[in-house]
Amino acid sequence: MQQTLRRLILTTVLVGVSMNHAMAQTSLPDPASTDPEKLGWMQGFPPPPDKLIQFANGSNYQFPRTRWSFSHGRELGPTMNVWHGNGPVSALPAAYRDIEQLHFTDEHNADMTWAGMLQNTYTDSVLVMHKGKVIYEKYFGISKPYLPHIAMSVTKSFVGTLATILAEEGKLDPSALVTQYVPELKDGAYGDATVRQVMDMTIGVKYSEVYADPKAEIWDYARAGGLLPVAPTYDGPRSFYDFLVKLKKEGEHGEAFAYKTVNAEVLGWIVRRASGQSLSDLLSERIWQKLGMENDAYFSVDRLGTEQGGGGLNLTLRDMARFGEMMRLNGKWNGQQVIPAAVVQDIRKGADPAKFAKAGYVTLPGYSYHNMWWIGHNAHQTFEARGIHGQRIYIDPVAEMVVVKFSSHPLAANPVTDPVTYRAFSALANYLMK
Amino acid sequence: MQQTLRRLILTTVLVGVSMNHAMAQTSLPDPASTDPEKLGWMQGFPPPPDKLIQFANGSNYQFPRTRWSFSHGRELGPTMNVWHGNGPVSALPAAYRDIEQLHFTDEHNADMTWAGMLQNTYTDSVLVMHKGKVIYEKYFGISKPYLPHIAMSVTKSFVGTLATILAEEGKLDPSALVTQYVPELKDGAYGDATVRQVMDMTIGVKYSEVYADPKAEIWDYARAGGLLPVAPTYDGPRSFYDFLVKLKKEGEHGEAFAYKTVNAEVLGWIVRRASGQSLSDLLSERIWQKLGMENDAYFSVDRLGTEQGGGGLNLTLRDMARFGEMMRLNGKWNGQQVIPAAVVQDIRKGADPAKFAKAGYVTLPGYSYHNMWWIGHNAHQTFEARGIHGQRIYIDPVAEMVVVKFSSHPLAANPVTDPVTYRAFSALANYLMK
Repeated sequence: MQQTLRRLILTTVLVGVSMNHAMAQTSLPDPASTDPEKLGWMQGFPPPPDKLIQFANGSNYQFPRTRWSFSHGRELGPTMNVWHGNGPVSALPAAYRDIEQLHFTDEHNADMTWAGMLQNTYTDSVLVMHKGKVIYEKYFGISKPYLPHIAMSVTKSFVGTLATILAEEGKLDPSALVTQYVPELKDGAYGDATVRQVMDMTIGVKYSEVYADPKAEIWDYARAGGLLPVAPTYDGPRSFYDFLVKLKKEGEHGEAFAYKTVNAEVLGWIVRRASGQSLSDLLSERIWQKLGMENDAYFSVDRLGTEQGGGGLNLTLRDMARFGEMMRLNGKWNGQQVIPAAVVQDIRKGADPAKFAKAGYVTLPGYSYHNMWWIGHNAHQTFEARGIHGQRIYIDPVAEMVVVKFSSHPLAANPVTDPVTYRAFSALANYLMK
Repeated sequence: MQQTLRRLILTTVLVGVSMNHAMAQTSLPDPASTDPEKLGWMQGFPPPPDKLIQFANGSNYQFPRTRWSFSHGRELGPTMNVWHGNGPVSALPAAYRDIEQLHFTDEHNADMTWAGMLQNTYTDSVLVMHKGKVIYEKYFGISKPYLPHIAMSVTKSFVGTLATILAEEGKLDPSALVTQYVPELKDGAYGDATVRQVMDMTIGVKYSEVYADPKAEIWDYARAGGLLPVAPTYDGPRSFYDFLVKLKKEGEHGEAFAYKTVNAEVLGWIVRRASGQSLSDLLSERIWQKLGMENDAYFSVDRLGTEQGGGGLNLTLRDMARFGEMMRLNGKWNGQQVIPAAVVQDIRKGADPAKFAKAGYVTLPGYSYHNMWWIGHNAHQTFEARGIHGQRIYIDPVAEMVVVKFSSHPLAANPVTDPVTYRAFSALANYLMK
C-alpha cells in the first residue's frame, strides 16, 4: 500500500516544484515502449489480468498504465458532466503546416526537433493554433479527438477564470475574507485569508505536497476526496470540504507564492457559494456553451458529488484549444465577446514576481501566479495553465500562437519537461512569426 | 443493511413480473409531494446531511431520492461514454398538440386524463412523436432535455438491437451455442444454450429476481457488478463476468420465457466478443453517430469497466425518441437507412406467445419477448422496450406514434403502472388517428 500511495503521489498529486538537473536526468523508459495501444491495456472482454487497470488497487495511477487511464478517468470513478450545450459546434479552421522537423537546441545544447520533443515528453495529444487556425494536431497511443483527457492542474485555471468572471460581475469580491463566502472555514487556515490570497496562492497553510513524506497532508487530501481507495478502518475526512475545514495555518498569508492544490479547492467552494451553481454548471453556462464546444467535459467528484476543482477536469484537446484561443483573443470567440475583456486583462497583468520567486521555480524565471494562471511577464507576454505530467495551455499573444498539450510523463513535476518544452514552444513561435 | 438491500432490490433490480391487483392498490405517496426540486435533494455546497444522496449508504436507491438519482447516476459511480459523434445533430421537428386533458377510462372505470396518468405514474419526462413530429414533450422535477436518465431494462432492447444488427451482418449466429463466443461459460447454466435462447430469454438458469428472498441470486449480481456497496469482508465475485460464469442451470432452455437480467449481461458479453468492441463503442458507432444524437449517453460499468448491459444505459429523452422513431420507420432516419430494415422486421416478428404466456404477465396478454424487445402481437402491432420504475419506449406503427417516458415510480415492477399507462397510450393513439 505504501508503495502504491507513493506512486500515486508521485504521479498525480505532486505539482511543479523546483527540481535540479540531476532529477531531469533520471533514467526514464523509452516513450515508444510505453504506447498504451501496443501495451494492450484494457483490451479484451475481460482484459487479461495483467492488462487490467482498476481503481481499487491503484493501478490506474501506475505509469505506464497512466497512458491509458488519463483518458479514461470516468470509467474508474464518479464524475459530473459539463454540458456542451445545444447550439452549433464552433468551427476550428485548419491550415496545417509541417513543423515536425522544426529544429532547435535543447537544454543540453543538443539538436532537437518538434517531433522529438513530443516523443520525449510522453505526449498524448497536441494542437497548435496560429492566427486562429489549427496549424498542427496530433494524437498518440489511445488518444482521440473526442476523448477527454485529464487536465490535472490546468483545471485550476478554469476555476480561476470563473472566479475572475464573477469578480468582474460584482458577484465575488476578491478583497473580502474567504469566510464571507465559506463561514465553515473560520477556525482553520483560511480564517483570516482573503479571496485574493487564495486566487494567487499566497496562503500560509500547513499542507505539504511532498510525496516522499508519508505524513504529508496531500495523502489525506487524496483519501478525503475519493482519489485513493481507503482501508476499511479509515476514519479520516470523507469529502474535500471536510478536509479543507481541518487545515491549519502555518506562516503568514500574502507574503509568498506557495503552490498548494487545496487553495484551488477552497476557491471552488467560494465560486459555488458566490454563484449558487456547481462548478460544472457554471463552466457549462459561461464557457462550454458560449464557445460552441464539440464535446462535453467532466469533473471527477468526491463522495458528496463535489468536483475536484484542483485537478479533476477532463476535456478534449480541441475544446481546450478553443478555450486557449478565446483567452488569447481577450475573451472573444467567433467575433463575440464571450467573457469580458477585463477578465483576461486582469489575469494577464499577473501578480508580484518577487513573491513568486520565493517558491524557487528555476524553470519559471520572472513568472507570477495570478487568478490560478501562470504569467510569464516576458517579451512574448505568455500566460499559461499547467498540470502535472505535462498538461499545458500555452498562450503567446505576440506570436499569435496557442499550444495545448496532454501528456502522461512518468514524472509528475513539470520542471522535468519545462526546459525542452519551452525551447520548442519558443522555437515554434519564432518560426511562425517569420 | 438488510433494510437497505431490500429497498435496493425493490426499487432497482426487480423486473416486471405479474402482480396482483392488491399490490397495485398499495398506498403510495402523493406524487406531487415527491418532487425532487422541492425536496431539495443535493442542493447546497455541501447539501445538508438530510438532503445528501450517496452511493456508500445506498440512499441513491431510496424513493423519493430516486427522483433525483435516476438522472444523476454518473455522479455516483464509474461510467463509460457513448459518444454522439461529430456530425450535425438531427432535427426533431415539433408540432405541439394539447393532449393534457385527453380523457380516458382507467382500469378502475374512473375518468382519467393524460396529465393525470403522467402524475400518477411518477413521470420524470415524456415525449410523444406522431408522424415524425414531436407533438408533446414535458419535463418534471429536476429532469432536463439534456440530462440523461437511467433507462433500466430499456437498455436490454438497445443491446438486443445491436445483437440483431450483428446477426444480420453475419457476425453473430443466433443458432450457435453461447460457448462459441464465450467459452468461459461452458461449465455453467449457459453451457448448452444457444444465442437465440439468450436473446429471447428462454434460458433455464438458477437465478431469482425475487427481492423478498435474501438468498436470491440477484443480490449477488448487484454486489458483483458494483451496483451495491459491499462489506469489507465480502469475498464474492467482483465483476459481471465472474458472476455469470458461476450461474447454474435449472430446468430446460427453450421451453418458456423467463425474464432474467443476467441473460442481457450474457448477450452483452456475446456482442462484445462478436464485434470486438465495447457496447459503448458499438452503440456509438451503429446508433448514436448515425442518428445524429443530441447528447452523449453512458453506461454504468463494473470494477473491470464492463458495461451493465442489463440496465445501465443512461440517455436523454430526446435521443430515446430518435431511436424509437427510427425503429418505427423500420430503420430509417432522415431518409437514410441507418440500420437494416431486416433488423427491425426480425424484432417485430416476435417469438412464441405460448412460451411467453408461461411467465404469467397479466398486463401483457398475447405478448412475446424477442431480441430483448416486448412484442404486442396486437392490432396496432405495438412493440416496446420496458424498464423498471416506468422507463418505456412504446412504438405503435399503426397510429404512427412513438411514446418515450422516463419515470421514478416508487415500485419497480411495471405491472403496477401498466393498466393506466397502456390505456393512456391507446387513447392517445386513437385520438391521433382521428
